[in-house]
Amino acid sequence: MRMYDIIEKKRDGGALTDKEIAFFVNGYVAGDIPDYQASALLMAIYLRGMDQDETLSLTMRMLHSGDVVDLSSLGGVTVDKHSTGGVGDKTSLAVVPLLAAMDPGHVFVAKMSGRGLGHTGGTLDKLESIPGLSTQVERDDFLRIVREHGGAIISQTGNLVPADKLIYALRDVTATVGSIPLIASSIMSKKLASGSDCILLDVKVGSGAFMKTVPQAVELAQTMVTIGRGAGRRVRALVTNMDRPLGRAIGNSLEVIEVARMLQGRGPADLEHECLMLAGELMEMTGRMGAAAARDRARELIENGGAFDKLCEIVRAQGGDPAYLRDTALFEAAPIQHRVLAPCDGYICRIDTEQVGIASAQLGAGRLAKGDAIDYSAGIELLANYGDPVRCGQPVAILHTSREDLLVQALATFNAALTFGTDEPPAEPLLFASVDESGATYPSRRDAE
Amino acid sequence: MRMYDIIEKKRDGGALTDKEIAFFVNGYVAGDIPDYQASALLMAIYLRGMDQDETLSLTMRMLHSGDVVDLSSLGGVTVDKHSTGGVGDKTSLAVVPLLAAMDPGHVFVAKMSGRGLGHTGGTLDKLESIPGLSTQVERDDFLRIVREHGGAIISQTGNLVPADKLIYALRDVTATVGSIPLIASSIMSKKLASGSDCILLDVKVGSGAFMKTVPQAVELAQTMVTIGRGAGRRVRALVTNMDRPLGRAIGNSLEVIEVARMLQGRGPADLEHECLMLAGELMEMTGRMGAAAARDRARELIENGGAFDKLCEIVRAQGGDPAYLRDTALFEAAPIQHRVLAPCDGYICRIDTEQVGIASAQLGAGRLAKGDAIDYSAGIELLANYGDPVRCGQPVAILHTSREDLLVQALATFNAALTFGTDEPPAEPLLFASVDESGATYPSRRDAE
Repeated sequence: MRMYDIIEKKRDGGALTDKEIAFFVNGYVAGDIPDYQASALLMAIYLRGMDQDETLSLTMRMLHSGDVVDLSSLGGVTVDKHSTGGVGDKTSLAVVPLLAAMDPGHVFVAKMSGRGLGHTGGTLDKLESIPGLSTQVERDDFLRIVREHGGAIISQTGNLVPADKLIYALRDVTATVGSIPLIASSIMSKKLASGSDCILLDVKVGSGAFMKTVPQAVELAQTMVTIGRGAGRRVRALVTNMDRPLGRAIGNSLEVIEVARMLQGRGPADLEHECLMLAGELMEMTGRMGAAAARDRARELIENGGAFDKLCEIVRAQGGDPAYLRDTALFEAAPIQHRVLAPCDGYICRIDTEQVGIASAQLGAGRLAKGDAIDYSAGIELLANYGDPVRCGQPVAILHTSREDLLVQALATFNAALTFGTDEPPAEPLLFASVDESGATYPSRRDAE
Repeated sequence: MRMYDIIEKKRDGGALTDKEIAFFVNGYVAGDIPDYQASALLMAIYLRGMDQDETLSLTMRMLHSGDVVDLSSLGGVTVDKHSTGGVGDKTSLAVVPLLAAMDPGHVFVAKMSGRGLGHTGGTLDKLESIPGLSTQVERDDFLRIVREHGGAIISQTGNLVPADKLIYALRDVTATVGSIPLIASSIMSKKLASGSDCILLDVKVGSGAFMKTVPQAVELAQTMVTIGRGAGRRVRALVTNMDRPLGRAIGNSLEVIEVARMLQGRGPADLEHECLMLAGELMEMTGRMGAAAARDRARELIENGGAFDKLCEIVRAQGGDPAYLRDTALFEAAPIQHRVLAPCDGYICRIDTEQVGIASAQLGAGRLAKGDAIDYSAGIELLANYGDPVRCGQPVAILHTSREDLLVQALATFNAALTFGTDEPPAEPLLFASVDESGATYPSRRDAE
């Protein structure tokens, strides 16, 4: 078998066999296939696509390029959620304690998360804004924390999916990131390697997401669910709105504070709504509770303090100081807090959410390049969101940063991201579609309530 | 400017600007752009194409990546021909002396040729089968020989089009060779760098050519003529038949012998016809003679020995021994000459010409990989060609080789390349189309006679 022939076949629109895909993945990981042949194949895949069988093969071959986490020793149902990335998306921080508290001893959330890059934040960065907390946890400690507390969120341990690391790095510099089979196999190989029985995918769509249109996002969701079915796991997907930031806080400690408030019943409605939806869906997937019952139970856990206590418990287990959650004023505040005022009477009728994410990164909250340092206190506090009425001169956001020199550019980015208008814009749903384990796709209403 | 953005633009079907193309070509030659980004761009170009402006820009930027030969000191009109490569295509060996003899002191052929690779032979390899002859000639000697004798055929001197060498090597291993804008810019950058005023392109089409269909070949011909016009040169193209080997001889000294015979009026009709057509077209391009008059003059030069004497003169000027041309029996014959017999009564109704070329290479006449040694005496002598009637047991070819061990595989290849049938196959034209300097395309009949 020759890499040349594999490139040629895909270039001409042919479907690669599992053997051909294995030859590429294994050969590339082994260093036998040079970057320039791999990138030619990736561009051919980008432009010619891959069918379901090819995408499943690619996922499985990538998955088996490294270790696969074994969660069977937990002795219950393991659940995981994954968001394709958005702005202000802190749902993992809330959903993990909710699930961990919902059905103790039976449902476990052994979650591995990533760091932020570009306009999206990363769950690990947010968590690490809590003093003392570590996300670098050894496999045995990780399993012990999950067993004892029902959940944990750590950074990847072991050698999971080395093929994805290599291929992703190459896609990143050859303009081949935005291909549905490549995105789907990258995400699913990592999720499958993390070992959970039930995987809920939150596919973001809109100006703040990688997927800009609902049909694209639905295609990605269906592709990943199909991979899950082929791999013998329970996988569902929700396609949710990222045409506006989720909640009001963007930035690391700002988002942790918002989650702490939400789990005490004081969070923004959109964030709570989405977290309950995710928790309900995940519990239904375990087969131990219906979605509506799970949402009711989650609301109860928010009201009686059980969810917040679980968050504190997990944070403590990972070395963090829960006092910061109980009294969020303990978090170091950014020395510069700049209020952005509405320029006219009217409504916020459009938000370029990606640009809002970039503004937050420019304030110091994110990485514009890998390895950049992060200012945990930096970020954006929205006082109004999409569709809200505003009065001229009313503050619509507070930009938090530690460096005056970063403020100017971030302010320009943020101002350009908001469009004001005199007419109230149409209400947009939070959920556009859901895809169940069989691949059946439902319109937004099914789980919108 | 970033290479990433250039890849992305072409990936999405955009037209690259001259500045973007210059950034790529110059950056790649300088080593600033890595292979993996270049190959991703090449695959995007392969699949998305390039318009006329882009193709001209690519050609000119490649052309100016190195030296350009200056032929103005010759003081006449300089002409060049280029074949896209076929099997048994030895027309350059005949056309150069014909042109050199046709209008002495006014028309010059300063030709740089290449070596054979794969199923196609190379003019340099054929010439070097003449004992003593050298194709490695310094620039000054080259110009002196051309000035004194009207023509010469040498290998590339100086640093011509280094960008093409680098880009071609990458295309060769990433399945991006067969793209019309990439082929056209590769050929034309080299032809323009060789410095001739008039360039005639012989675009081969059929089973023995890189272009398999007439529309493809016409598109390539038109693309190259358009580049020529954009570069301010006189360029025409002929689209000719390569569904059958040209002439009867395939292999280095075998082809030289056939040319020597043809220039003495004893060559196969198809070869003589094509050489006269090429010579007529080229003379017409110089503006010094019409095509029909030039063909008449060429016939006269064949009859009166002038063309053959000119071949001997040029061969001697390049250090070769013309005695071999006058008495072709002096060429060392291959020790093994295996006759292939017709398996039935009927006609040769199809020839997979590429496979015939490969059989010749397998006998030792060509290189299957760069740097392979060549057996000048090896090759194939066809005793019958496409459409010829044969009797069962009649010899249809003689395979020449020096090594018994090479014969078995070559014989299998050759046998599989010939299809016999009971019905006479349709006659195929030698010329499918011609494209003049303005890009106007004529059907085959225009110059078929």
